Order: sequence, then C-alpha cells, then structure tokens
Amino acid sequence: MVYKKITLIGTSEDGFDSATANAIDRAEQTLDNVLWVEVEDLGVEIATADTREYQAEVEVAFELAD
Amino acid sequence: MVYKKITLIGTSEDGFDSATANAIDRAEQTLDNVLWVEVEDLGVEIATADTREYQAEVEVAFELAD
Amino acid sequence: MVYKKITLIGTSEDGFDSATANAIDRAEQTLDNVLWVEVEDLGVEIATADTREYQAEVEVAFELAD
Amino acid sequence: MVYKKITLIGTSEDGFDSATANAIDRAEQTLDNVLWVEVEDLGVEIATADTREYQAEVEVAFELAD
Amino acid sequence: MVYKKITLIGTSEDGFDSATANAIDRAEQTLDNVLWVEVEDLGVEIATADTREYQAEVEVAFELAD
Amino acid sequence: MVYKKITLIGTSEDGFDSATANAIDRAEQTLDNVLWVEVEDLGVEIATADTREYQAEVEVAFELAD
Amino acid sequence: MVYKKITLIGTSEDGFDSATANAIDRAEQTLDNVLWVEVEDLGVEIATADTREYQAEVEVAFELAD
Amino acid sequence: MVYKKITLIGTSEDGFDSATANAIDRAEQTLDNVLWVEVEDLGVEIATADTREYQAEVEVAFELAD
Amino acid sequence: MVYKKITLIGTSEDGFDSATANAIDRAEQTLDNVLWVEVEDLGVEIATADTREYQAEVEVAFELAD
Amino acid sequence: MVYKKITLIGTSEDGFDSATANAIDRAEQTLDNVLWVEVEDLGVEIATADTREYQAEVEVAFELAD
Amino acid sequence: MVYKKITLIGTSEDGFDSATANAIDRAEQTLDNVLWVEVEDLGVEIATADTREYQAEVEVAFELAD
Amino acid sequence: MVYKKITLIGTSEDGFDSATANAIDRAEQTLDNVLWVEVEDLGVEIATADTREYQAEVEVAFELAD
Repeated sequence: MVYKKITLIGTSEDGFDSATANAIDRAEQTLDNVLWVEVEDLGVEIATADTREYQAEVEVAFELAD
Repeated sequence: MVYKKITLIGTSEDGFDSATANAIDRAEQTLDNVLWVEVEDLGVEIATADTREYQAEVEVAFELAD
Repeated sequence: MVYKKITLIGTSEDGFDSATANAIDRAEQTLDNVLWVEVEDLGVEIATADTREYQAEVEVAFELAD
Repeated sequence: MVYKKITLIGTSEDGFDSATANAIDRAEQTLDNVLWVEVEDLGVEIATADTREYQAEVEVAFELAD
Repeated sequence: MVYKKITLIGTSEDGFDSATANAIDRAEQTLDNVLWVEVEDLGVEIATADTREYQAEVEVAFELAD
Repeated sequence: MVYKKITLIGTSEDGFDSATANAIDRAEQTLDNVLWVEVEDLGVEIATADTREYQAEVEVAFELAD
Repeated sequence: MVYKKITLIGTSEDGFDSATANAIDRAEQTLDNVLWVEVEDLGVEIATADTREYQAEVEVAFELAD
Repeated sequence: MVYKKITLIGTSEDGFDSATANAIDRAEQTLDNVLWVEVEDLGVEIATADTREYQAEVEVAFELAD
Repeated sequence: MVYKKITLIGTSEDGFDSATANAIDRAEQTLDNVLWVEVEDLGVEIATADTREYQAEVEVAFELAD
Repeated sequence: MVYKKITLIGTSEDGFDSATANAIDRAEQTLDNVLWVEVEDLGVEIATADTREYQAEVEVAFELAD
Repeated sequence: MVYKKITLIGTSEDGFDSATANAIDRAEQTLDNVLWVEVEDLGVEIATADTREYQAEVEVAFELAD
Repeated sequence: MVYKKITLIGTSEDGFDSATANAIDRAEQTLDNVLWVEVEDLGVEIATADTREYQAEVEVAFELAD
C-alpha cells in the first residue's frame, strides 16, 4: 500500500477549524480514501480579502489505488 | 524548582480549541500544578474515526514535587 | 515597497481564533496597512491566569510608509 | 529544465528500506524520469495494521516534460 | 476558496533569480491563477550538468477551481 | 480520547529496522494500546559499544485509559 | 553593547539581490549603525502585483545606543 | 538495551549552567543510570519570579531496566 | 491582554549568562512589564572584538499597554 | 578534550543500514577515535546511478588529538 | 562510493549568485570531483565591510577518493 | 574572500561558557584568522565521564587563505 500527500490551503472567515474543514471538504470532492490531515501553517489574510480570511495550510494524505 | 513536560494528544470532534482543552483536562486528572501547555502539532484523523477527529499534540508543563 | 513584521501574542479565554483576532485588533490600533498575519506558536497559560488563557504568537506584516 | 516533487508514503512489513523501495516502485509505475528520492519521515503504524507496518514518507523528484 | 501548492525545481545557468522565474513560467504553462511562490531550497548542480546549473526549489500556490 | 507519547531509544547491532522494533517491543512490555511510532533520530554508537550499536530514537504513541 | 534586530521584507521586480538591497536601504533611512542582515525567506508575489514582485524577508541587526 | 528520555526544566537564579545541573540533580533523585542530557531550550522567567529565574529545558536520557 | 516580542543581542566578555542579563537590563531601561526572555542563538564574536565577545540573541516578551 | 565532526555521505545498493556502515568504514580508514555517528539525511539516487543507490548523510564525531 | 561535505561562505559585492559561485570556485581550487552545492544561509555584512558584502553559506559535496 | 566552517565539540567540567572557550582555544591552535563561533548544541555527558562533562557543539568560522 502506498499513500500520497498533497498540500491545500483552506480558507474561512470563521476561524482555523473551519478553514481546515474546508480544505478536507475540497479534497474529498475529488479524492477517495482521504486518511488524515496534518496542519503545516496557520495565517490570516487581511489586505487582499474583504473580511479577514483565516487560512490553514494542510497536508492531505490519501491512499493511492494500486 | 524543577518542572517536567509530558506530551499528550487531545482529540475532539468540535475543533482544535476543544482538542487542546481535552488534553489539559486529562492532564489535570492526575497531575497537580499544571502550569502551561505548548501546542506542537495539529491534525485531523479521518479514515479510522467515525467522524473527523481534530487532534492537538501538546506539551504539558507541571511542577515536580521536591 | 518595503514591509515590516512585528511579533505579538494575542490572548483570549475563548480559543485560538479569538486570541489571533485580538492580536490583529491591537495591531490595527496603531498600524496602518496591516497586510497579513502568520501564526508562529499556540499555547495555553494556566498557572498564572485566573482562567485558561489561550495564546497565539503571530507575526504581523504591514506596509512601511516611504 | 524543470523538475517536480511529489510526496508518497511507502509501506512494508519488512523495514524502512523496502518501504522506501515500494514508494519508488509505485512512482515509477506512472512517472517517467524519476531522478531521486529524499526521505522526510520514518514511522511504524501498529494499531490499525495487522502486522507492524514500516512507513517511509519520501519526496520523489522527476523531470517535467517541456 | 481553496488554494493548492505544488513543488517545482526551476533550473538556470544564470542564477537563482532566473531559476525561480523558470519554475514560475513552467507552472503558468499549465496552471491558471498562480498566486505566489515560496523558495524552499537553493543549490547548484555541478557534476551531472555541462555547466553549473543553479536550482531553485519552490512551492507554487494557485487557486483551485470550485 | 487522549493519547500519550513517550520517547524511547531502541538499540541493535543489526540495523535501524531492528533498533526501532526493539523500542516497540520494550514499549509493549508495559503499555497497552501502543498505536504508532515516529522516528525522531537515527545514529550509531561506536566508542562505548563493543560492536557498533545502531540507535533509533522514537516517539511511541499509546492510548491513555480514561 | 546591545544590538537589536527588526524584520523587513524588501521587494523588487528585478530579483532577490535587489529586494534584499531595498530592505537595507530602507533600514538605513531611519537606523544608524546597521551592522548585518540575515535572509530569512525568499518568495515571489504574483497575483496581487502588476509584475512579479521578488520578496526578501530579512532580519536587520543594528547597534542600540546606550 | 533500550533508553528512555524525559523532559525536565531546571531553574536557577545563578545561570544556565546551574539550571541545567539542577535538572540533572532532580533526575538522579529518582532515576538510576542517567546517561546524558541534551539542552532543548534556554530562557529567563522575569514577571512571575521574585528574582530572574534562568531556565534550562533538557532531555534526560537514562537506561531502562529490562 | 496582548504581549509584544522584540529581538535583542546581549554581549559580554564573561559568558552567556551575563550576555543574556545585559540584554534584559537594556530592555528594562525602556520597557515596562518585561515578562520573560527566550534564548534564540548563542555565539562568540572573535575577529572584530578586542576580547572574545559572548553574544546571546534573545526574544524579550513584554506586556503592551491597552 | 575536544571532539570534531565531519559530514560524510555513505552509499550502498543494499539499503540505509549498509550506506551508514560504509560511511563509518571510510571514516575509520583515516581517523582514529571515531566515537559516534548521527544520521542527518537519507535518500536514494536513481537517475545517475546504474542501480538505485541508497545514501545516508551522517555526521561522524571523533576525538581530536591534543 | 563515499562523498564528503564541507561548509564554505562565499562573498561578493555583486549579489548572492556570485557569492555562491565564488565559494564553488574556491572549492574547485583544491578539491577534485565537486558534485553539488546546497545553500544553507544568505546574508549581507555591512558594518565591517567597505561595501556591502553579500554572503552565501554553502555545503559543498565532493567525492572522496577510495 | 571565502570563509570556511568546521564543527568542534568543546568539553569542560565547569560549564557551557568554558566548554565553548575550550573549543575556540583548540581551533586557534591550528587555525589562523578564527572569526566567530556559533553554538549549535549544548549537552552534558554523564555516564561515560568521571565527572559531569558540559559539552558545547560549535561551528568555528575562519578565513581561508587565497
């Protein structure tokens, strides 16, 4: 069995939890077998966002089909 | 005075704040003089959990009795 | 254009999101052009705080006037 | 010339060498011009694996076609 | 909104600036909405390159279509 | 649910795989519910060991009883 | 003698060298005794800049008056 | 042979050397076979200490009985 | 409550303890409510100093007035 | 007593254990008093090697003659 | 085959590219089989240099004769 | 101008300051133009030393003759 990791940045106006959840939701739209997520970085975009945008950079691990 | 640190991973279905709080609660069940906590890692377990499980790995510092 | 970064630690009894927001609010009291924030560390102060104090150490980036 | 890196986690019941090799084998199934591999993390999954599963997280570098 | 990051290594005989630029150029060939790039590592390949090859390993962030 | 991590250094004259395995074996002698292991450092002791001693420093994660 | 460090991000359309130089120039506008600079991060802003903006995050060390 | 590591924070009003020594002394009160110590962090507590308290966070390695 | 951190490098011909103390002394000349200090780097300047100059780079945390 | 460290990269077609051992063997050809070895990086060279070449970058510590 | 790495700091008044190249040139004066170079740190010396001195700390890898 | 760095571990029964000084003294026995020293790690050897041996791993920078 081999797993693969991709890096996504989820965003949300509500906070880091939902920014993380949005990244997982987006991953599960196109990936089967999403296994776990590791948070790499947290931040807040202010200047270029209408409202403060919480950001969660996460590594998403999923199982590769053989 | 000497302090000691142990590493716990708190979990919660609600988010990182409550995962961190659960780790502190568990530490305070058996340790006196819990002083502070440092977050080492954040992640979400998906595959082996019924619902997404937010995880907070924390170092818990407490005062050692002489 | 040159940006500058300062390091603030926001605190809150509610959680890491609001601790981060408090740091940004405080920065915007005295700084124009706050651009973005990067979370460096998260922790919880217990011993010296009446109630558990969530802490978010953040780097605040803002634009320096010429 | 531009190279690309992807992150795979090879697994094996035998050890870290073969976990690494399995990741390279899987990469070479779909990628031409695999150039080198850098080991990022090593671990062993115990609870959710029938037998101890050695895991090697590796970055696989390969040449991008122009 | 969710962003994705991929890791490319740009190369150039001229220097690190152009190695970075080559990686961005290659990314923009196939990706819309390239947002920013973070330099992870810099190096120079000597033995296997005819002329010294400056290399810039960069993370390229781009916006994922919904 | 709360997990705990302890740090062990397994040793072996045969190699890193068996040094890691020895650490897990020792952990399982006294701990129930060992879940996974993360390798932190690898090294070889030479001067103070009769034969080269491969060492694997690992974090052992296990489930804390409620 | 005590030195102080501040963090600036220099930018330039030409490359990392001149982004670094711009940060030093800006520091020397307001600070006496700038001693040395350490590069912390390099990146390129694309989406929100008219032309690719090379960025160099640097720590500027200078001597504090007694 | 398997070693174990624990994390202690020694404190002293005199300096980092004695803060480190105090941590070792405390470890040797309850542990046999203390082998070596690695310094992880150094700091000084000011606000909550009567006098400046030098702190040395150390990992203490000792031999586990079979 | 919001804290701020600045980075100072204390120096001394006597050693790291006094280099750290000198940085704290200098901070307390101009800052109220200095809370704690974290040592980031230690070094010794030789060539440009008459006598070996021990240096301690420290982050000084203090409370920001509202 | 003063020790010195050098950095070697051992290689082997068999695996990381023997790549590490080859580095130690080479060090012991020219150095007396090799004390211990710390593994810094592990990787596999593929493109420029006839067969996959396991590589172990290690720091070799040895005692300096007075 | 065993490779060795040494650490050099190249300097130049022109920029980081040429500071890196100067380090490689100096290595090739005395070393055969220089293979590749990894940039560890970049900085600029100001106070003790007549003109700003760009510095590139690099690890130089070369093949050890058997 | 090109500088070189080597890694030494100074030891002392008195403390980290003198362990660092011993490493510099040993370097200056054989090297001209020692410029500065950066502390990489601090530790205390206990088991294999008659008395606790404070250790300071330092990088020593010196100027290479042309």
